[in-house]
Amino acid sequence: MLVLYIAKCGHPSFNQPTFQKPEEPLVLESKGKLYEELDCSINGLYHISCRKEGKEIFIPFSFIEKYYEVYGKLVKYKGHEQFEWSHSYSKVFKPSTRYNSSGMFMYFSNYNVEIRDRVKCVSATEGVPVSTQWEASGYYYPVQVAQYGLSHYSKNLSEPHPRKKILEDGNLITAKWQVPKGAYIRRNYDDSKVTHLLEFNSRDSPGIFLRLKQGTDLVLSIDVRFLTGNSSLTLFLEDRDRSQIFPVSYTCSPVLIEVYNSSGSYSTNYGMGSCQTWNRLTRDLHIDLIKGHVLSGRGKKLSRAKLRIHHLLLKGYGQIDNLTVASSNHMEMFYSSADWLVRHQDSSGGWPIGVKRKIAAGRADLDPGWYSAMGQGQAMSLLMRAFNRSGEHHYLEAALKGMKPFSKSSTEGGVRAYFMNQYPWYEEYPTVPPSFVLNGFIYSLIGLFDVLSLAPRSQVGDAQLLFDQGMYSLKKLLPLFDTGSGTVYDLRHFTLGLAPNIARWDYHSTHINQLLLLSTIDSDSILTTFAERWMSYMQGKRAAHN
Amino acid sequence: MLVLYIAKCGHPSFNQPTFQKPEEPLVLESKGKLYEELDCSINGLYHISCRKEGKEIFIPFSFIEKYYEVYGKLVKYKGHEQFEWSHSYSKVFKPSTRYNSSGMFMYFSNYNVEIRDRVKCVSATEGVPVSTQWEASGYYYPVQVAQYGLSHYSKNLSEPHPRKKILEDGNLITAKWQVPKGAYIRRNYDDSKVTHLLEFNSRDSPGIFLRLKQGTDLVLSIDVRFLTGNSSLTLFLEDRDRSQIFPVSYTCSPVLIEVYNSSGSYSTNYGMGSCQTWNRLTRDLHIDLIKGHVLSGRGKKLSRAKLRIHHLLLKGYGQIDNLTVASSNHMEMFYSSADWLVRHQDSSGGWPIGVKRKIAAGRADLDPGWYSAMGQGQAMSLLMRAFNRSGEHHYLEAALKGMKPFSKSSTEGGVRAYFMNQYPWYEEYPTVPPSFVLNGFIYSLIGLFDVLSLAPRSQVGDAQLLFDQGMYSLKKLLPLFDTGSGTVYDLRHFTLGLAPNIARWDYHSTHINQLLLLSTIDSDSILTTFAERWMSYMQGKRAAHN
Repeated sequence: MLVLYIAKCGHPSFNQPTFQKPEEPLVLESKGKLYEELDCSINGLYHISCRKEGKEIFIPFSFIEKYYEVYGKLVKYKGHEQFEWSHSYSKVFKPSTRYNSSGMFMYFSNYNVEIRDRVKCVSATEGVPVSTQWEASGYYYPVQVAQYGLSHYSKNLSEPHPRKKILEDGNLITAKWQVPKGAYIRRNYDDSKVTHLLEFNSRDSPGIFLRLKQGTDLVLSIDVRFLTGNSSLTLFLEDRDRSQIFPVSYTCSPVLIEVYNSSGSYSTNYGMGSCQTWNRLTRDLHIDLIKGHVLSGRGKKLSRAKLRIHHLLLKGYGQIDNLTVASSNHMEMFYSSADWLVRHQDSSGGWPIGVKRKIAAGRADLDPGWYSAMGQGQAMSLLMRAFNRSGEHHYLEAALKGMKPFSKSSTEGGVRAYFMNQYPWYEEYPTVPPSFVLNGFIYSLIGLFDVLSLAPRSQVGDAQLLFDQGMYSLKKLLPLFDTGSGTVYDLRHFTLGLAPNIARWDYHSTHINQLLLLSTIDSDSILTTFAERWMSYMQGKRAAHN
Repeated sequence: MLVLYIAKCGHPSFNQPTFQKPEEPLVLESKGKLYEELDCSINGLYHISCRKEGKEIFIPFSFIEKYYEVYGKLVKYKGHEQFEWSHSYSKVFKPSTRYNSSGMFMYFSNYNVEIRDRVKCVSATEGVPVSTQWEASGYYYPVQVAQYGLSHYSKNLSEPHPRKKILEDGNLITAKWQVPKGAYIRRNYDDSKVTHLLEFNSRDSPGIFLRLKQGTDLVLSIDVRFLTGNSSLTLFLEDRDRSQIFPVSYTCSPVLIEVYNSSGSYSTNYGMGSCQTWNRLTRDLHIDLIKGHVLSGRGKKLSRAKLRIHHLLLKGYGQIDNLTVASSNHMEMFYSSADWLVRHQDSSGGWPIGVKRKIAAGRADLDPGWYSAMGQGQAMSLLMRAFNRSGEHHYLEAALKGMKPFSKSSTEGGVRAYFMNQYPWYEEYPTVPPSFVLNGFIYSLIGLFDVLSLAPRSQVGDAQLLFDQGMYSLKKLLPLFDTGSGTVYDLRHFTLGLAPNIARWDYHSTHINQLLLLSTIDSDSILTTFAERWMSYMQGKRAAHN
């Protein structure tokens, strides 16, 4: 008879030794000693409970998981259970064709920028996301604005054509408005706008009502102009899970987003700023509701599939036109970012970032107003697509102006640094001393490449030189990012004398995806050699030791 | 009843998936399902056999061992068995006092250079080891010669005073020689040598015989001079394990070492080259026999404890004096290396290395005649100790001359390279492009420090500048050797665009030991910060990822 203990295999702490106390003894009868508990001493630092079976020692995965940060899960595979060990949680998207500057941007069609926790909401004045990553009050982050646009551009190419239904154009297509006593709604021809539109006035009534049953097509577009400050447009969204209705309003308020909690429910307001002029609103109502849901303290669980527009309410005095609902409207959102970038570019060609960025505890901080080579590059990728798609030259001009900070030193407000005074580098974070972030640098190279590919040859300016210099630096410095089992995110360990800043797996796979993209436009084998070695690290392989 | 399989857990191959086939089923009766076999899929690449017990999965160590290169062994600890997991096989020697240039050299008292496989033997003409590491025919490797001397210097300080017995000095102390008929041995006063000595002539006899029973004191010293080419001195060593006797002879041959196999036994000859002049032989007979043992194809297993000198035989015509046996004679061996270095230093102050050194397959090779900053540095450490101990100025002069190649570029036959044209580095292997080997560089800095510490201030020349520049480069470039879980041996991955050349654990611990040594003479916290982080890597800790 052999007494066997089952030990709860908790996570060992690296600081204080944790000995696994045996718990409720279990009696196991077997023919001969087969399987027993065994103490494992880990580097003499602490003890865990292992198992011994013949000559083999078995180590609890709960320990390995912590010690090596690997991932495992039990899965049923063809009916039989197996344990899947994965070295990395991330994955690589191998490009099948040459990178195309007017095509999808990398794998951004998988992104949903606006739903991220660090996005407070999509502004109803600017039509782009507002970030809270480094400042809770919220700010516009050019990198995020560009990624928002690039993701919608890519989704537009990857997704089926959207369903779209015009509900009211003030002329041929008309909706069934329910107008209370004293209120009115009428269709006029507007000479300035050269089209028919609707004028409404709810007077003292509860508002002009439009019943809607648009299922899951939750992207609303409308031209709207309020002629009194108390006017508003409200969408009533029905959550079929909770069989509850939540109002989302667009008002003349300057406040970005506000939530009014009432017993069991809440309403969300988006401020459009000044309302006297025409606003073109394009809203993903699911996103707009989720952001209110979060602000109301209800978390972000709100299934798009279970949501539908119940009705719409107009209050106050104003005009509307082209009321449309669609399953998506990626191109409008794409152009919203492009237009934001055109509006907010400064005279130096930069998109200044209005928040302080702390790199390494008090050292190499960035004060508000800094530019990011990554922001510039992603903006260029977006603007060149907007130019290519629309033919509008102001997009091209903004993209070309966006290159200016690449020629200006990061010590003088530009984004250009040098590794050991020799290899130029475009800094995602133009710190002093430089930080040499790899992924941001490569995004900036892709931006330059997009300019080269889509701008008229006569207008590309420094793009070729900047791109070539950057590729030269990249190929030379690539080995410094290779740890033999992964990659470092940047070279701050060298410039600041710190421990290496290891890239977590999703950044590691971004490095690989970027090298694979570049390898489709540059045949130098170093790009694929490094990409392949870095991929092998994700499967637990390591560089050889001597 | 639960049927349980025991699987032999072989080492998984990284190339082809190896599925662990279950073998001889074993019947295990228990109350309830307790413990079962489970397939583990490793990164989807291959399968191993794991165990499942409740919620815990157990992974076979035979897999972990290969996958992560960790080490484990079953040990009895206070009567109960435990499994000891070690992340690294190497260990760190923490210095307890400030480094002393006239004291032991690091932990070299633990070294036994001459017993290493890559040492062919200790030359009977030069009194220093001959390396076969990069050329099977054998060559003198200054780094090895210096390490041989430094290890004996350190052993002399760490070991108890040796037992020593003079057997014959031709005057006061005389041995019982057995002289066959016709042969003679007589003691004369020699005017040139100003001492008594023994003249012998074996004529046609089998030789003049001296019975010895010196137990395990196996270090023999003798002054010898042969006046005919066929003369020889032979030691007969008894291996009490095999109760066999093996002769080791010292002859006038120019051949370094020769072995004559005869049925069941063999004899080993060491050539002393020209014999007409006086030779001072100091031989570790255990080492001399082992090297013959290896050459005879018998391996290196030959216990020192089981060996003793059985008798000694003189043949031919010659003179001897000061026949001594001792438990050790470290200082003689130390001075043998110091004298070798003085004899073989060239006019540029270098100790040229006569073999080709291949760094990276056809790239950055070194042609015969190259200098090593490590060789120069270790020689300086040795020579400064010889000067300090003996007061002999030619040791000092050689050490000072040894600094010359530090100021000469590795592209012009020196050892000085620059990282990115800015940070000077003294190259263990002065390749073009540079390889920036860390441990060799630090050994060269220690050599410079020993010059600074022990040379008269007026004569140190560039030593201070060279040391300060080197320390500055070291502190700046240290982070480039940190992988976040270990260190790289050199920076060839950067200069040649290769995968990082990870330092195996013994080199990693050398890096740490060297930084700890430097931290006792330089208070800059970067040295201890890195040493401590690098020590933590040996316990499985890693730098943080972002």
